[in-house]
Amino acid sequence: MRFKRSIGCMHTEKSTEVKKIKLLIEYDGEDFCGWQKQLDPNTIQGRLEEALQLVEGKRSIIYGAGRTDSGVHAAGQVAHFFTDKAIEPKKWPFIFNSRLPSTIRVLRAEYASDKFHSQKSATSKLYEYRIENSRVQSALDRRVYFCPPKLDWCEIEKALPHFVGTHDFASFQGAKASVKTTVRTVTRFELIRKSDTRYHFEVEGTGFLKQMVRTMVGTVVEVGEGKRKASDIPHIIQACDRRAAGRTAPAQGLFLVRVDYPAE
Amino acid sequence: MRFKRSIGCMHTEKSTEVKKIKLLIEYDGEDFCGWQKQLDPNTIQGRLEEALQLVEGKRSIIYGAGRTDSGVHAAGQVAHFFTDKAIEPKKWPFIFNSRLPSTIRVLRAEYASDKFHSQKSATSKLYEYRIENSRVQSALDRRVYFCPPKLDWCEIEKALPHFVGTHDFASFQGAKASVKTTVRTVTRFELIRKSDTRYHFEVEGTGFLKQMVRTMVGTVVEVGEGKRKASDIPHIIQACDRRAAGRTAPAQGLFLVRVDYPAE
Repeated sequence: MRFKRSIGCMHTEKSTEVKKIKLLIEYDGEDFCGWQKQLDPNTIQGRLEEALQLVEGKRSIIYGAGRTDSGVHAAGQVAHFFTDKAIEPKKWPFIFNSRLPSTIRVLRAEYASDKFHSQKSATSKLYEYRIENSRVQSALDRRVYFCPPKLDWCEIEKALPHFVGTHDFASFQGAKASVKTTVRTVTRFELIRKSDTRYHFEVEGTGFLKQMVRTMVGTVVEVGEGKRKASDIPHIIQACDRRAAGRTAPAQGLFLVRVDYPAE
Repeated sequence: MRFKRSIGCMHTEKSTEVKKIKLLIEYDGEDFCGWQKQLDPNTIQGRLEEALQLVEGKRSIIYGAGRTDSGVHAAGQVAHFFTDKAIEPKKWPFIFNSRLPSTIRVLRAEYASDKFHSQKSATSKLYEYRIENSRVQSALDRRVYFCPPKLDWCEIEKALPHFVGTHDFASFQGAKASVKTTVRTVTRFELIRKSDTRYHFEVEGTGFLKQMVRTMVGTVVEVGEGKRKASDIPHIIQACDRRAAGRTAPAQGLFLVRVDYPAE
């Protein structure tokens, strides 16, 4: 999709050609009611669409790759929108950021192909979940699950491979979710030790159910607390019952890190 | 000062012995009007004293080592207070933290000697100032001075040694300050390169004037922008005039990292 040159003010000149713009977005989820626009306007999508409206003069939809829950962060959310404005892609980050709260930043913008769709074209997503396993919480690093009880990280590590593969993850789906199928493929679930007290999980897969990563983490934390065994995981998956799994780990430890797309 | 054992509920039992407790405190300054209690109750000192009042049943003063400005953070603020409660020091962090916003955390508490005073006994303070020198601001790391123009870090580094020593720092004192003397000793002013775009200054000294670190940083940033030369610094110091120095770098990049005391 070619950029059509226009003469005059770039921000107001209307091109006849509609372009699709792909955005890379970072946000601190603490202050927002999640990605998806709803009655409460304070969502990431809502704030982005408001910013776009200030430029476009009309409301346009911004389609996101992942509907992150209230309180969940993103280092690499992807979205797209259509515009007939003759604005070079590299200018969109500055246009958005000057109209957004500092807790949402558009890092990059580029033209997207006709067939690109931020959500439907995504082949894989990477989430990171951060746990602080110490007695003292930090005031400066609050985007973690602060978990004071001593956890058995060796036992937790044994639980992770059981999740990898294509399974019915109904046991790990948050309540009130309605999807066609609860079968998903997890390609990687790894534990990374950052310090004596700081541990990050990396979870990669082709798609995730609502609260799936948080329930997977909540369940393996219960393994680390000795309330469950690593070998219980296959039975929990087979149960296809949310009550079989552990608690939902809090939103503030979760980050959408990356969304992958096929090479075009 | 010995801990006097008391029988019964630790939180309500009143000991006749008054004890001095030293606190190590961390805070995210973003939401607060600085350390010092004032008409606006939303200060770090104000929040800590409110939390203490809930335990003591009366208002007590919490004395801080450094009066950090509105928006300035601390990883190692030190404070002290007096109490006649028979509470073991190790319990104070939990008692405070359960009554404080998550943006203020008491990390440690211990008995202090009779002669200890958080501010008057301090021999040295270490501040860190963080600069992000890139075109793209982060939503997840906002406790920095976001400074898009390309800076000449070599020239900045040359400016720093001129500040080290005992000087009259009147040129670097924020307006509205009233102190007996504007002579201070800076023992170290160093630049640490964290990445291609991230730079931290470390400034250590026996004491600092109001906004002194931020004005020192604002001035050397102007050196990096080519507006001043490193060799101008001695003249700026000698001028003893705030108008001779550069701008005051924003509060959100500044951290009080450590306060040192003589070994007892």
